[in-house]
Amino acid sequence: MAPLPKSIATVSISGMLAEKLEAIAAIGFDGVEIFENDLLTFDGTPGDVRYLAESLGLAITCFQPFRDFESMPEPQRTRNLDRAERKFDVMQELGTDLLLVCSNVSPAAIGDDQRAAADLAEIAERAHRRGLRVGFEALAWGRHISTWRHAWQVVAVAGHPALGLILDSFHTLALGDDLSALPMVPAEKIFFAQLADAPKLSMDVLSWSRHFRNFPGQGQLPVAAFVRDLIAAGYRGPLSLEIFNDEFRAAPARLMARDGLRSLLLVEAEAGATTLPDVPRCDGIEFLEFAVDDDSGRRLGEALRSLGFHYAGRHRSKSVDLFRQGRINLILNSEQDSAAAEHFHFHGPSVCAMAFRVDDAQRAVRRAEALLCPEWRERTGPGERQIAALRAPDGTLLYLVEPAADGSTIYDVDFQMFGDAAPAPLLDAVDHVAQALPVGRMDNFVLFYRALFGFRPEPLWEIPDAMGLIQSRTMTSAGQTIRLPLNVSESRETATGRFLTTFSGAGVQHIAMASPDIQHAVVQLESRGAQFLPIPGNYYEDIAAKWGLADAHVAMLQAHNILFDRDEAGDFLHAYTHPFDDRFFFEIVQRIGGYRQYGAANASVRLAAQAKRRPGAGLRA
Amino acid sequence: MAPLPKSIATVSISGMLAEKLEAIAAIGFDGVEIFENDLLTFDGTPGDVRYLAESLGLAITCFQPFRDFESMPEPQRTRNLDRAERKFDVMQELGTDLLLVCSNVSPAAIGDDQRAAADLAEIAERAHRRGLRVGFEALAWGRHISTWRHAWQVVAVAGHPALGLILDSFHTLALGDDLSALPMVPAEKIFFAQLADAPKLSMDVLSWSRHFRNFPGQGQLPVAAFVRDLIAAGYRGPLSLEIFNDEFRAAPARLMARDGLRSLLLVEAEAGATTLPDVPRCDGIEFLEFAVDDDSGRRLGEALRSLGFHYAGRHRSKSVDLFRQGRINLILNSEQDSAAAEHFHFHGPSVCAMAFRVDDAQRAVRRAEALLCPEWRERTGPGERQIAALRAPDGTLLYLVEPAADGSTIYDVDFQMFGDAAPAPLLDAVDHVAQALPVGRMDNFVLFYRALFGFRPEPLWEIPDAMGLIQSRTMTSAGQTIRLPLNVSESRETATGRFLTTFSGAGVQHIAMASPDIQHAVVQLESRGAQFLPIPGNYYEDIAAKWGLADAHVAMLQAHNILFDRDEAGDFLHAYTHPFDDRFFFEIVQRIGGYRQYGAANASVRLAAQAKRRPGAGLRA
Repeated sequence: MAPLPKSIATVSISGMLAEKLEAIAAIGFDGVEIFENDLLTFDGTPGDVRYLAESLGLAITCFQPFRDFESMPEPQRTRNLDRAERKFDVMQELGTDLLLVCSNVSPAAIGDDQRAAADLAEIAERAHRRGLRVGFEALAWGRHISTWRHAWQVVAVAGHPALGLILDSFHTLALGDDLSALPMVPAEKIFFAQLADAPKLSMDVLSWSRHFRNFPGQGQLPVAAFVRDLIAAGYRGPLSLEIFNDEFRAAPARLMARDGLRSLLLVEAEAGATTLPDVPRCDGIEFLEFAVDDDSGRRLGEALRSLGFHYAGRHRSKSVDLFRQGRINLILNSEQDSAAAEHFHFHGPSVCAMAFRVDDAQRAVRRAEALLCPEWRERTGPGERQIAALRAPDGTLLYLVEPAADGSTIYDVDFQMFGDAAPAPLLDAVDHVAQALPVGRMDNFVLFYRALFGFRPEPLWEIPDAMGLIQSRTMTSAGQTIRLPLNVSESRETATGRFLTTFSGAGVQHIAMASPDIQHAVVQLESRGAQFLPIPGNYYEDIAAKWGLADAHVAMLQAHNILFDRDEAGDFLHAYTHPFDDRFFFEIVQRIGGYRQYGAANASVRLAAQAKRRPGAGLRA
Repeated sequence: MAPLPKSIATVSISGMLAEKLEAIAAIGFDGVEIFENDLLTFDGTPGDVRYLAESLGLAITCFQPFRDFESMPEPQRTRNLDRAERKFDVMQELGTDLLLVCSNVSPAAIGDDQRAAADLAEIAERAHRRGLRVGFEALAWGRHISTWRHAWQVVAVAGHPALGLILDSFHTLALGDDLSALPMVPAEKIFFAQLADAPKLSMDVLSWSRHFRNFPGQGQLPVAAFVRDLIAAGYRGPLSLEIFNDEFRAAPARLMARDGLRSLLLVEAEAGATTLPDVPRCDGIEFLEFAVDDDSGRRLGEALRSLGFHYAGRHRSKSVDLFRQGRINLILNSEQDSAAAEHFHFHGPSVCAMAFRVDDAQRAVRRAEALLCPEWRERTGPGERQIAALRAPDGTLLYLVEPAADGSTIYDVDFQMFGDAAPAPLLDAVDHVAQALPVGRMDNFVLFYRALFGFRPEPLWEIPDAMGLIQSRTMTSAGQTIRLPLNVSESRETATGRFLTTFSGAGVQHIAMASPDIQHAVVQLESRGAQFLPIPGNYYEDIAAKWGLADAHVAMLQAHNILFDRDEAGDFLHAYTHPFDDRFFFEIVQRIGGYRQYGAANASVRLAAQAKRRPGAGLRA
């Protein structure tokens, strides 16, 4: 089946109308719904909008909304029909033939389906005389008509060829409804389909709809099933996004437009209407690369040695060092005139790249490209290996490393490896990598990792920092081999907020590494000079009371500043290093049994302990 | 009756424990509830906290919360009692005798009141042996016990002298419940009372409680009636604030502590337990004062002349000019080395003071002082009149001007008034003055104007700017003679957000002046060179369709760039000047019939028209 045309309502993104149209066209949409308010603020005629859209190659798929129309008493009924005639004038100038009429929410509306049908037949007849059409949509909070089935009954009774149904995934799914009964509607009577997702929130449906919608795949509604049913019923019209979201309204238009089109491409494939290359099978994080300069590189190398890493190799032609422990590879890049140097210049010493182990890097790149994320080609020297790479939304490089058939590693080609025997590792894998995101970008990152890699979002955690809340959501690969907690904070004074302000942008805040025996590891590392974040004694009093832990166990934890958490499946022990240059820090974790979380219950204690050590923090150091 | 002690839970404000205690003491609270998480992150013993609180003169009124206690199956029951013993240790070190036990929310809890009563009797007996007490509080989302009546039944059955009730206004009022049945509880069994208000939001009560509580008087719950019933039932313990609010957590601790104590002083008086000087009777805005320098003062003077103002007087000793029209007085202050000059230095040309006409300035000052806002004394020269003044939360001076017995005006003393006849005014009063507030400060300003002046908040409006939402709430005096719209925006890219960033702080964004005949006024002012903001033609197409206005009427509005709105009581016509130095602008308004709003329906059109004119805005000017 050919892909359906892709459209978006202008209300979904920020800016003035001309900028919106340009962003929508540049990203590759086929059409656009003109939301009336965007026209009212446009300093030109509807004909100018038509010309602009045509020159950008955009079809105007719909003009909307026409509110509070059906079932009004006189004189409003007549006035509404006069109003419709004026809007038909506008539509003819715009060059669109479809008007969206949404079900009446006015307290004055009469609850009479016959009246509603007669009114809709009348407006459709008037539209028909001008070669226009009317689509009727049930708002979930419509006064008398709130479901698509009810809307269809009325449209069917009206029985006018210029009158059809408009279906909207939010209005349908928010009520717990679905399209399973859609085959009763002739395909040609489904005039238009609007898509939106939303997180599940228990609030009134109007507020939910007006502020918290998001793109398909970013929320929790079964939008793919909605699209599957829609296509099964014979619909071949546009899939059009209509999103009301406070954060989207404040974000750059092109960024949101790209996310929108990506979400449509994904949901169409998830509905089985198109195919995308399969998501990669992931097997953990192959390496993390740090952008450093000579000084910070030397100091970070020392810090890594104190954490049990050994200096394993040096790049053959560049100022790039490899530190290794167990399956953990950390690369320190201080090469001048490189992407890493640029990264260092803007962000200071920081993680500039991550590498995922995948089954097929080229397939992963093809999937990414189909989802509007082009492959990134890093400059390489002669004879050096080119590793497939993408760019995450914050600019972090994501390398895709697949196992070589001959068992060689990516380091064999480019690095001079030192032969000295590696010490027995105390830490054996990267457990998770936590990133700070700018305010309002959680949905953007969730969609990126979900669409390209098939990672799934875990439930949202709210962490009380002393200066505000931090929201944290982890994206995990199938099999949990890659775990990426994503943190955002409205407050600029929290740890996450300060991170963004201080380091001008998103990025890796902390790296957690797994140990099979954290007590042993911490003792060994302390003997090498590693220092761990001191945890207040009151914390240990509390966990002893909370979990009924044995005194000796608590004493051991306290002696080594190890934090403790427990879920229904197991225990979690974890300890933190001091931050490196106040920028990022390491965590050592031990998962016991099937514990699947990240110790978020202890985050406020950790945050307070870190805040206490910041210069100028509080009155008492 | 003596005022009740005032207390606040540490969770209500931001910072680390020591800073919180210092802020709470500095503002003048009598006591503090220690929220356990603040203790866990404190790097010292509970004894250190006791010492700190004692040295600050703060009583520790309560230790909280102790969760998920009653009606648990074994072995959790025994473990819970062990946990309680450890918390009693902490309480004895802290030097507080009251533990807050909140009703169990665990799915494992048994729904058996006899078991709950027996468990509470047991924990109370254990507390009693140490000279401690236990207060039981019903959480609105408790698994089996969610109302104070139910909690009281269980406490009464338990019948232990060391067990009593803790009442919380949020948990009670959020369920639509009240304290009218409280006289059935002996006064000595009411151990403690917590107060919180909240805006009415239709969402699940747990999310509502955890994120949106605010101080009494800032929300919509009947907290004063709650306090009245509490006192009528014989309660004489502390009134203690327990607030969970995302914005409060991110604001400076002292600012929030001051608001908290102000709210308690206000609610206690509103409950009739104490008295405050009456709110002032207000009769409009007497003058607005602009901080300018020589250049901007000259240009602003010219702009005012084009708006029909005449140059009415000059200060006898300072570089201060008076412009006047009808009852509108505008003062341009370019005096060096003055508070206005300081204001100019930080904020550019801007409103630095407003004067309210009040019936009794000294009573208004006494009320403000009783509510923690000291009188502000401006420097005055010899022979100059001292006008009573306060400082608004953003630093704007608020003068309080009362009618003089002899009919003289405040200008007679300080100003050299020019005798030339004033022209017939086209504008006759200040209709409203709109201010931009920093993110998170709406509640702060609402409480200030409500507590000190008795202004009432009107419903919240949400205005879609092209770059995000703006929230607007107007505070109005009784009789509507003073109207102050307050605007906030989460997005830094909206008109409100940019205003704050560009002009470093809150302040007056626009001044609306009433005309008895806007069409006449605009024609006259245009002939004097005034320019009004051009409004797109599509807007007039739409209002013609929306309101069924006569063609000639619409043509007149369009010819003069006058916007139109209508509510159930009347019509509203309004037009805008171009911004002065991109900083503030004037609006001319005409209210016809009983129209009470501010044309918010047109705000997005006005915002778009303004944005279009900003340098560098969009691709098409």
